[in-house]
Amino acid sequence: MTNKVCILGAGSTKYGKLEEGIIEIALNASASAIESAGISPNQIQAGYISNVFGVADKQVHMAPVIMSNLGLSHVPGLTIESACGSGSIMFREAFANVSAGFYDCLLAVGVEKVTHTGTAQSTTLFSYCSDFFYEGGNGASFPGLFASIARYYMSKFQADETDLASVAVKNHENGVLNPKAHMRKKITIEDVLKSPVVASPLKLYDCCPFSDGASAVILCSEEFAKNSGRPYVEVIGSGRGASPASVQGREDIATIPSTVMAAKQAYKMAGISPSDIDFAEVHDCFTIAEIIDVEDLGFFPKGKAAKAIRDGATSLSGEIPINPSGGLKSKGHPIGATGIGQVVEVFDQFTGKSGQRTVKDAKIALTHNFGATGASAAVHIFKKVE
Amino acid sequence: MTNKVCILGAGSTKYGKLEEGIIEIALNASASAIESAGISPNQIQAGYISNVFGVADKQVHMAPVIMSNLGLSHVPGLTIESACGSGSIMFREAFANVSAGFYDCLLAVGVEKVTHTGTAQSTTLFSYCSDFFYEGGNGASFPGLFASIARYYMSKFQADETDLASVAVKNHENGVLNPKAHMRKKITIEDVLKSPVVASPLKLYDCCPFSDGASAVILCSEEFAKNSGRPYVEVIGSGRGASPASVQGREDIATIPSTVMAAKQAYKMAGISPSDIDFAEVHDCFTIAEIIDVEDLGFFPKGKAAKAIRDGATSLSGEIPINPSGGLKSKGHPIGATGIGQVVEVFDQFTGKSGQRTVKDAKIALTHNFGATGASAAVHIFKKVE
Repeated sequence: MTNKVCILGAGSTKYGKLEEGIIEIALNASASAIESAGISPNQIQAGYISNVFGVADKQVHMAPVIMSNLGLSHVPGLTIESACGSGSIMFREAFANVSAGFYDCLLAVGVEKVTHTGTAQSTTLFSYCSDFFYEGGNGASFPGLFASIARYYMSKFQADETDLASVAVKNHENGVLNPKAHMRKKITIEDVLKSPVVASPLKLYDCCPFSDGASAVILCSEEFAKNSGRPYVEVIGSGRGASPASVQGREDIATIPSTVMAAKQAYKMAGISPSDIDFAEVHDCFTIAEIIDVEDLGFFPKGKAAKAIRDGATSLSGEIPINPSGGLKSKGHPIGATGIGQVVEVFDQFTGKSGQRTVKDAKIALTHNFGATGASAAVHIFKKVE
Repeated sequence: MTNKVCILGAGSTKYGKLEEGIIEIALNASASAIESAGISPNQIQAGYISNVFGVADKQVHMAPVIMSNLGLSHVPGLTIESACGSGSIMFREAFANVSAGFYDCLLAVGVEKVTHTGTAQSTTLFSYCSDFFYEGGNGASFPGLFASIARYYMSKFQADETDLASVAVKNHENGVLNPKAHMRKKITIEDVLKSPVVASPLKLYDCCPFSDGASAVILCSEEFAKNSGRPYVEVIGSGRGASPASVQGREDIATIPSTVMAAKQAYKMAGISPSDIDFAEVHDCFTIAEIIDVEDLGFFPKGKAAKAIRDGATSLSGEIPINPSGGLKSKGHPIGATGIGQVVEVFDQFTGKSGQRTVKDAKIALTHNFGATGASAAVHIFKKVE
C-alpha cells in the first residue's frame, strides 16, 4: 500500500445529450486521456471501466470492446458499478492495483449514455439504484428521497429554499466557464425558485440533469510518471465508505455516513485535515446534497454550510471553492463517468488547463462522489506536483 | 503481491429457476458462505459482488443492499461485471485486494436472476455481452457464434458431433451427483444428437441453460485462515487474459487467446505446469467450449481433446477430471455467479463436502471462466491445505 500513484493524463467528452454510441463516447474520452498523457496506447496494462446502464445502449461487457477498439485487444479490462458513485469506486480499485504494484500504467474510463431512453425511462432505470424493495418499488425515486432529506435538514438547521438555490446559482456560474459542461447557463436565485417543482422543496434547478458522457484518466506509478518527463498529479489519499442502503435505515439523514467514513480514511492516508484542501469537486446530484457533503467532508460545521455557501465561501474566489467544474448540477451527471470526471477536473486545474475557472494557488484538491443517496461513496485527495 | 490468500468458506444456492428475488438469492449464498467459514459477519471488511443483469430484477447498486441486509451497512461493497466471466474477474480483484494487504477478510458473492424474463428476452440481454456492433446487432448471438467456432474446429481437427455430445453426457453424469445442479438428468449420446438443433452443429443438449443462482466465498489472509482453526484452501495462482472482443477479430478461432494468457500467468504464479492439476472446473457454456478450453489450458495438445474426452480422460475417474460439479452444462450458468460457483466446487472438493462426485486424491485444482466468446477470462489455481 505504499507505492505512490499518479495521474499522468486526463480527458473528457462534452457532457450532455450525445449522438454517438456508448462505445464511441468512451473511446473519445480514452483517446483524449492517452494523448494528454503523451504515452503510447501499448504502455497501458489494464483497463478499468465504470458504467451503470450499458444495457440501455445494448452493450454490457464493455471493457473488451473498448480495449479492442483502442487496438489493445490483449489488455484485460473489467467494469465496476456502484450507481452514481461508479467512477470513484472504480478509481479506488484502479488506485489499489497500481498502489499494490500489480500494474504500472492503467486506463480508467467512466461512461454513461441514457438520454436517448427519455426522461421517464431514465427515471425508472435510476430508481433501480435505490434499495428497490424499500424505495424505488414504492415510488421513492431520487428526487423524492432527496426532498425528504432537504425537508429534514431545513427544519433541523433553519435553512430555506433560497439556501438550496444558491448552490445551483454558484455551480451554474462555474459551469459557464467549462466548455465541456452540459448546462452552460447563468441562472439567478429567482430562476431557481420559480422553476417547476419536481419534489417539494426541490425544483427543476435544484436537480442535476440526465447526461451522456465519458471521462478518462491514466493512472501510473510514480516512477512511470517521473520517467515520462510530463506534468502529473499525485494521489495522496483514498477512502471508501458505506451507509445503510435505504434512507429509512439511517439514524440521522442530515449526514451521509459513507462520506464521513471515506473522508476520514482519505484524510488519514494523506496525513492532512479538511482545512488543507484548496478546492473540492463534490457530489451535488441535488442542491441539498452539496450542502450536506461539504459539512460531512469537514469544510463547515454541521448545520453551518447553507449560510456559508450563500455568503460566497464556496464560490470560485471563496475560502474553499466547491465544484469549480460546475459540478453535477451544471457540468452534468453521466453517472458512470462522474467520479472520473471529477479527477479530470483536478488534473486540468493542476496542469494549467482549466482556463477562467482555475482556482488560484491551489495545491491540494479533493474529489467526493457517492452512489444513490450515499449508500456507497469514495473520496480521493490529490496533490499538485511542481 | 506476496501475501497468501485463502478461501475459508463457501456456499451456493441451488442453480435453476428460482422464485426468490435477486437480493434474497445473493443473501442465501452469502449466509451459507459465512456459516461455512465459521466467522462472525462483522469480521467481513468489504463485499465484492459480481452480476450482469440486475436491471432485469430492478436492482443495480446491489452491493450496499446486500451488505445492509447482512447487517453490515458500514461495510463498503461494489459490483464487477465481465459478462459470463464476471465471477472469476471479480474473484481476481478480491484476491488482489487481500494479496496486497488492503483487507484481511472479504465476502465475494456472484449472483444472477434472468429466467423470469423468458428465453427470448434472456437471449436478447445476453447478446449485449457480445461486441454488439459487429455481433449481437447483426444476429450473431452466442449459439451462432459458438456454432461457427465448432464448425471450424470440427473441420480443422476431424472432430464430429458425437465428440461434442460426449462432453454433455459426461457433465450430466457429474451433475446428477450434485444436489445444487440445475439439470440433474443423465443423458446419452443419442439424446444429445436427437435434441432440437439450436445453431448447427449445436443442439439443445450442447448448450448450457439460462439459470438463476448465487455463489459466495470468504477470502482471507493466511494468518486469518490459520487463526480460525478451520479447514481452508489456498489460492496459489491467478491470471487474467483478454481476446479481441469479436470472434471475427481473431486469427484462429480454434483457440481462445484470453484463456491461454490467463492460464500462463496463473501457472507461472503457482510455479506449476498443467500436468500438476488434479481436476478443473472450466467454462463449458457450449460443448465445443470445453473441448477448446482443456486444450488452451494445456491438458491436451491442440486438436487432441475431442478424442480424449470421448475416451473418458476427463470423466470423474479419468486422468484429468473436468467439471466434477457438472459444469455450466449441467450445474447451470447464472452468469454473474458462475466463476464463484467454480471456487465453491473446489472448496467443497478439498474440504470433504462433495459427496459422490469427489475427485480422489486431488490436491491441486484449477478454475477457468470466460466472458462472452472469451473476450475476457480468468484462471485461478488452488491448493488443498492438509
